[in-house]
Amino acid sequence: MEVMNDAFYMRLALDMASKAKGQTEVNPVVGCVVVKEGRIVGLGAHLKRGEGHAEVHALQMAGSEAEGATVYVTLEPCSHYGRTPPCCERIIEAKAARVVVACLDPNPQVAGRGIARLRESGIEVDVGLLEAESLAMNEAFNKYITTGLPFITLKTAMTLDGKIAAKTGDSRFVSGPEARERVHTMRHQHGGIMIGVETALADNPELTTRLSVPGLHPVRIVVDSQLRLPLDSRLLQDASIPVILLTTSGAPAEKRAALEVKGVSIITCGPGPRVDLAYGMKKLGEREIASVLLEGGGRLNGSMLELGLVDKIILFMAPKLIGGQSPEAFTFSGFDRMADAIPLKNMVLEQIGDDVCISGYPVYATVQAEQTRNKP
Amino acid sequence: MEVMNDAFYMRLALDMASKAKGQTEVNPVVGCVVVKEGRIVGLGAHLKRGEGHAEVHALQMAGSEAEGATVYVTLEPCSHYGRTPPCCERIIEAKAARVVVACLDPNPQVAGRGIARLRESGIEVDVGLLEAESLAMNEAFNKYITTGLPFITLKTAMTLDGKIAAKTGDSRFVSGPEARERVHTMRHQHGGIMIGVETALADNPELTTRLSVPGLHPVRIVVDSQLRLPLDSRLLQDASIPVILLTTSGAPAEKRAALEVKGVSIITCGPGPRVDLAYGMKKLGEREIASVLLEGGGRLNGSMLELGLVDKIILFMAPKLIGGQSPEAFTFSGFDRMADAIPLKNMVLEQIGDDVCISGYPVYATVQAEQTRNKP
Repeated sequence: MEVMNDAFYMRLALDMASKAKGQTEVNPVVGCVVVKEGRIVGLGAHLKRGEGHAEVHALQMAGSEAEGATVYVTLEPCSHYGRTPPCCERIIEAKAARVVVACLDPNPQVAGRGIARLRESGIEVDVGLLEAESLAMNEAFNKYITTGLPFITLKTAMTLDGKIAAKTGDSRFVSGPEARERVHTMRHQHGGIMIGVETALADNPELTTRLSVPGLHPVRIVVDSQLRLPLDSRLLQDASIPVILLTTSGAPAEKRAALEVKGVSIITCGPGPRVDLAYGMKKLGEREIASVLLEGGGRLNGSMLELGLVDKIILFMAPKLIGGQSPEAFTFSGFDRMADAIPLKNMVLEQIGDDVCISGYPVYATVQAEQTRNKP
Repeated sequence: MEVMNDAFYMRLALDMASKAKGQTEVNPVVGCVVVKEGRIVGLGAHLKRGEGHAEVHALQMAGSEAEGATVYVTLEPCSHYGRTPPCCERIIEAKAARVVVACLDPNPQVAGRGIARLRESGIEVDVGLLEAESLAMNEAFNKYITTGLPFITLKTAMTLDGKIAAKTGDSRFVSGPEARERVHTMRHQHGGIMIGVETALADNPELTTRLSVPGLHPVRIVVDSQLRLPLDSRLLQDASIPVILLTTSGAPAEKRAALEVKGVSIITCGPGPRVDLAYGMKKLGEREIASVLLEGGGRLNGSMLELGLVDKIILFMAPKLIGGQSPEAFTFSGFDRMADAIPLKNMVLEQIGDDVCISGYPVYATVQAEQTRNKP
């Protein structure tokens, strides 16, 4: 049983926006509800880059009812002419009386301008309702728009003893079907999905989004310093879903040419022997990949973590012990002192089917801060 | 973390619909989401009687993207020409490929026709996803459309010892502010609000919807066999919110005339001495009041319950004991055997602020069934 107040409408706007997560490319997801004298008169969400903003859809549904109404919107309305005319002008033109905004535009160069424009036109504006929820919903966009770098979410399934496979390499399956469905939902919601070549060789995965309903497929990215990815890899069967390989200038030129013929994009990240991952992330950002789901294996996970490049970690822990010299979820040189271990902040615990899901944000010590100085 | 599947979209459609509860008069609330190839392309809800249905709003937002899309709708699309053209034809015209429906039209005379029309045009139709949620959301409409009678929800705040006031009559306040905010939200969501004249005399209430945002005010209904409601009652201060008195033919004619001058509607429910409540409910239904929130006092609560006229009960129990010969929440003659007590089915327990909220549906024994034979 819910109470009707400003948050009642803002939660509906957040719900519409969050369901559209994954379909707006480098744009944030935004929802909008227009309310007049106790009635909802308009509903909208930003559904596709380059098309109508949330406010435009909702004001269109409201029609003349928008006059004197309250507009609830999860993100500050834009005040600049981009691919669509500014929403502020649309709101002013519709003669709304009040605008409630969850959070300001995260881009410090524009934040507050939309609010100022609305206020100077005489519209009452309130800012900050369910701000944390709105910021979390667009956490990837918020990093990307301020740094040009993709937001990296490391996801791994593991046993209670931290293994991602048996000592034989067998890994079907660590977690249960419920957890795997959530992973595919996460794929739909990301711009790119990244693995190391060892995982590509061991599992020969498709890295597509497979759900009971159609999902969008992220760009597939493989970190492959020597271009060992086989030409008959499952990743290369469907050319309609792009593949990017991050490699080094030491990789064989003939293999590079053969892969390019297959439509693969190849980005050279330094001279080697290993791929310069920080440079690679920068290049992915330049290609407008705003979010990357990192799906292992353990060595790539460990390297990304060691470099302070991981923004968020989501662990699906299956309640079982595998033992043996099995592949680990995080392979890196590690720290001498327990006090130096990388902690997760804002941890969230959830039971998903029979598995436990632990998520949070790694906090890097000063020694790593150098490599993460571009982060928000 | 949510999985993307048919239910993911249907829950969004349900969310939009349920937030519009209270603003569609005798119409059901309905939500609609249009999805194409992994993207939401249209969002809509029925927002006002006589205006666009949910499907129309959502298909308009989708535009040409609706072709080949899946339409998720919480209620079977209409196939008849009413105040708006049939939604089935709009869906067929838009060339949707699949329609997922939560529940059939509850009116047995039309149920299934919309589905049949869609299927005969070659559209794939699935029915029953989140059916229970959709039926519960429109439980009042479902009774009203099939019986012409309003759905009656009895709401009361009480102490742990079942009292609604102290022995002095003081009742400010039994429950906490959170529970009271929920009651005002419930008022917004009902067509009428009903009390007995004893409560009107003791508390002199306004019976309006008072929240931190504007709400709609239900019609105020007082059961008043002798028309004792004073002409200076707070209920008569704002003539823009209708007042209906249910009375008897034995009430004084001069008082009746004086109340009518003040804009009050008076319905004579039998010769008296007490108001014929079953007849009164029938008359309210004829005036297109599809749902009534019954707010006491104890005698009216008891009579309505004894007659089997109450469909749902919501108790806010404050964790305190008042003692004394205090007014009770339910005053009626009662049963000789504990086994005959009226049970609540589908009980839901919720903590609201410091109070406990217990809700459920009373089950009447055969002896009452006679009086409730028109119920669904």
